[in-house]
Amino acid sequence: MNSPIDLMRRQVSELHQELVRYGLVVWTAGNVSARVPGKDLLVIKPSGVPYDELSPRNMIVCDLDGTVVEGDHSPSSDTAAHAYVYRHMPEVGGVVHTHSTYASAWAARGEAVPCVLTAMADEFGAAIPVGPFALIGDDSIGMGIVETLQGHRSPAVLMKSHGVFTIGKDAKAAVKAAVMCEDVARTVHISRQLGEPLPIAQDDIDRLNHRYRTVYGQRPAAR
Amino acid sequence: MNSPIDLMRRQVSELHQELVRYGLVVWTAGNVSARVPGKDLLVIKPSGVPYDELSPRNMIVCDLDGTVVEGDHSPSSDTAAHAYVYRHMPEVGGVVHTHSTYASAWAARGEAVPCVLTAMADEFGAAIPVGPFALIGDDSIGMGIVETLQGHRSPAVLMKSHGVFTIGKDAKAAVKAAVMCEDVARTVHISRQLGEPLPIAQDDIDRLNHRYRTVYGQRPAAR
Amino acid sequence: MNSPIDLMRRQVSELHQELVRYGLVVWTAGNVSARVPGKDLLVIKPSGVPYDELSPRNMIVCDLDGTVVEGDHSPSSDTAAHAYVYRHMPEVGGVVHTHSTYASAWAARGEAVPCVLTAMADEFGAAIPVGPFALIGDDSIGMGIVETLQGHRSPAVLMKSHGVFTIGKDAKAAVKAAVMCEDVARTVHISRQLGEPLPIAQDDIDRLNHRYRTVYGQRPAAR
Amino acid sequence: MNSPIDLMRRQVSELHQELVRYGLVVWTAGNVSARVPGKDLLVIKPSGVPYDELSPRNMIVCDLDGTVVEGDHSPSSDTAAHAYVYRHMPEVGGVVHTHSTYASAWAARGEAVPCVLTAMADEFGAAIPVGPFALIGDDSIGMGIVETLQGHRSPAVLMKSHGVFTIGKDAKAAVKAAVMCEDVARTVHISRQLGEPLPIAQDDIDRLNHRYRTVYGQRPAAR
Repeated sequence: MNSPIDLMRRQVSELHQELVRYGLVVWTAGNVSARVPGKDLLVIKPSGVPYDELSPRNMIVCDLDGTVVEGDHSPSSDTAAHAYVYRHMPEVGGVVHTHSTYASAWAARGEAVPCVLTAMADEFGAAIPVGPFALIGDDSIGMGIVETLQGHRSPAVLMKSHGVFTIGKDAKAAVKAAVMCEDVARTVHISRQLGEPLPIAQDDIDRLNHRYRTVYGQRPAAR
Repeated sequence: MNSPIDLMRRQVSELHQELVRYGLVVWTAGNVSARVPGKDLLVIKPSGVPYDELSPRNMIVCDLDGTVVEGDHSPSSDTAAHAYVYRHMPEVGGVVHTHSTYASAWAARGEAVPCVLTAMADEFGAAIPVGPFALIGDDSIGMGIVETLQGHRSPAVLMKSHGVFTIGKDAKAAVKAAVMCEDVARTVHISRQLGEPLPIAQDDIDRLNHRYRTVYGQRPAAR
Repeated sequence: MNSPIDLMRRQVSELHQELVRYGLVVWTAGNVSARVPGKDLLVIKPSGVPYDELSPRNMIVCDLDGTVVEGDHSPSSDTAAHAYVYRHMPEVGGVVHTHSTYASAWAARGEAVPCVLTAMADEFGAAIPVGPFALIGDDSIGMGIVETLQGHRSPAVLMKSHGVFTIGKDAKAAVKAAVMCEDVARTVHISRQLGEPLPIAQDDIDRLNHRYRTVYGQRPAAR
Repeated sequence: MNSPIDLMRRQVSELHQELVRYGLVVWTAGNVSARVPGKDLLVIKPSGVPYDELSPRNMIVCDLDGTVVEGDHSPSSDTAAHAYVYRHMPEVGGVVHTHSTYASAWAARGEAVPCVLTAMADEFGAAIPVGPFALIGDDSIGMGIVETLQGHRSPAVLMKSHGVFTIGKDAKAAVKAAVMCEDVARTVHISRQLGEPLPIAQDDIDRLNHRYRTVYGQRPAAR
């Protein structure tokens, strides 16, 4: 009942409600996954199941190649991208994918969100970067995510013409990054509609980001 | 109790809640209908009844000329347009009409939504097209919908200066198309506010759309 | 229990929930009133009471000069404007005032919302007009509303630098007008952000408006 | 049970729900505090606790230097700024901090919201002013708030590249100011997207603000 897999089934199921609550998803187009601690497994949303029918029991368990180990439905069609991230970024414990409106609007122009809010300096430590255009069906999306985020402070990447992927030390941190990514993408978009947001000096960004990761006791994992 | 008509009454009644949930409608200005499988009948919203008073029992059953067969209220004032679509597109099992904000904003300019998001390539396979300006009262609206969507990949049409009609193999598919239409109309609008979204190559659109219809097991019905 | 006053208390109290549901109001800044049929009385929101504490019992009854007849609180600070409308427009049975976002944005520029959607032609029959800048404290606001709406098809007026007033044959019709006013103000605003909405020919506006008022059995009252 | 501290614990806990209701906050990024009447104490949100887990019991009590007096969690990381305000503005009984979208968009450009709505003249009596860029970690933010709001009619300040702080005679008044600040920041932003809002004459702003503070019996405290 409280095996690591069961805990992750419950956590992943519940965290999808945060995507709904913050308006990051419509219909079934967004998903959360978590690595099962101590195992080469991940837990992810079933494909095509509405958010209010999700429960710990209908979550899908896959190995890190994306092959289903437990589950009656197909896993999310984005499973290959999640699995690729877990295989190549051992410090990542959670991955989230959405088409949230404002972040996707930046992604459609292939433009990074500049770091012009102190909350962005805290959470992202830099502009939110753009990843390559990549088609679903093989490892292209996963590779694009890893190439962009490896060694980057930001836990979020805007995949060109597509949407957002975020990572975290666990699934909750990845969901928080997805929520904050849309929030700052929206605020900076709206600010730029009537002029140019003021830049924040690189030194100040560095100081804010350092403080956020240390004073608040957050480990720099999963970045 | 479980006759095809009763099933459609329940389905159509419940699907209106999705229009409310996704913010596609205000007051009573949007409607869902379904063809009754195996009969020359359709089930549609009653006119002027608020969404939270809809139930299977107050749905209206009409023949395919829009004449009421069962029901105490008048049918939606858009019934003629729905009926025309069912008469002329036998593969269509569901029709939805809304004045959803962003899609109607494109419709007011008479401008198609360009296909610049991978989710659009999946779901619409092309730009979302514009249909003619047409007045209510005869078959003009229905004709405009059919002329525009016949042979088109997109299940959605922006009727000029008016709003959106979507079709599907069943009512649920048409509702999904209405939800996705507003979602991409909003994201592309917001993206264009600060520059031009990057185009997606026609080949890539074709590949994404083909995969979506086949790998995911969706039949190309109702398009 | 079912006196005309009691019926209006219940109706006015409940209709405020529609303002909340459609996001037309924040805090306590919007109000609905109704004329009591057959009496020189109106029922209106108490001043400063939050929307979720409204009940039939705490509604305020005033005469048509705005003097309180029944009620423990002060009436809405906009009561003088409502009362002025009832005194000068005998066909009006309900009045609504909001600062809804998009309508107020047009009002802040002193610009009418052009009639470029078929739903506007139906409901408003013309551009939504702008009324004068007027200060609270005497009959200026009421006079501005009446001067603008007398003989006009539109049941809504954008009071310059202020917000919206709507009228109707009863309070429900005035609330519907307030909901539709914000809806079309938003859609037309968004449409104009990326170009000019197409005009609708005056003939077509006239035809749509005529049909809406007659075919749908709606009486042209309160305009 | 009904000590001043207990009353403030309940009030501060409940008022956070208004920030959620009006969409001013995401995740845990916004906070309310109240001065405990008659004591050199303040009550504030615990750091990092989600809004739906807040209760009177987990609120944090601090002295006016921001040192925790009662509470199991750390206090909000913005406690130093709140405390500074209480130490330097004895008439202030409540402080609110948010990163609400539209207000923060103005703050990111370092631009004041011009007073072009009668509701702004009532509530703010002037443009909503901009405070300096200041880093978290010492008294810079608190000093910036106090310097900007001391002697100013507005109960709200836009801290450059950061977000909003509001003050009030009690916590409820500060929350109201935060709600109204976002509401007018949004309306004025939207108005300016399609042209310039009309100015309101200084005389009229003064008259409206004077009336609002006196006729409505509101004391000019906390400004």
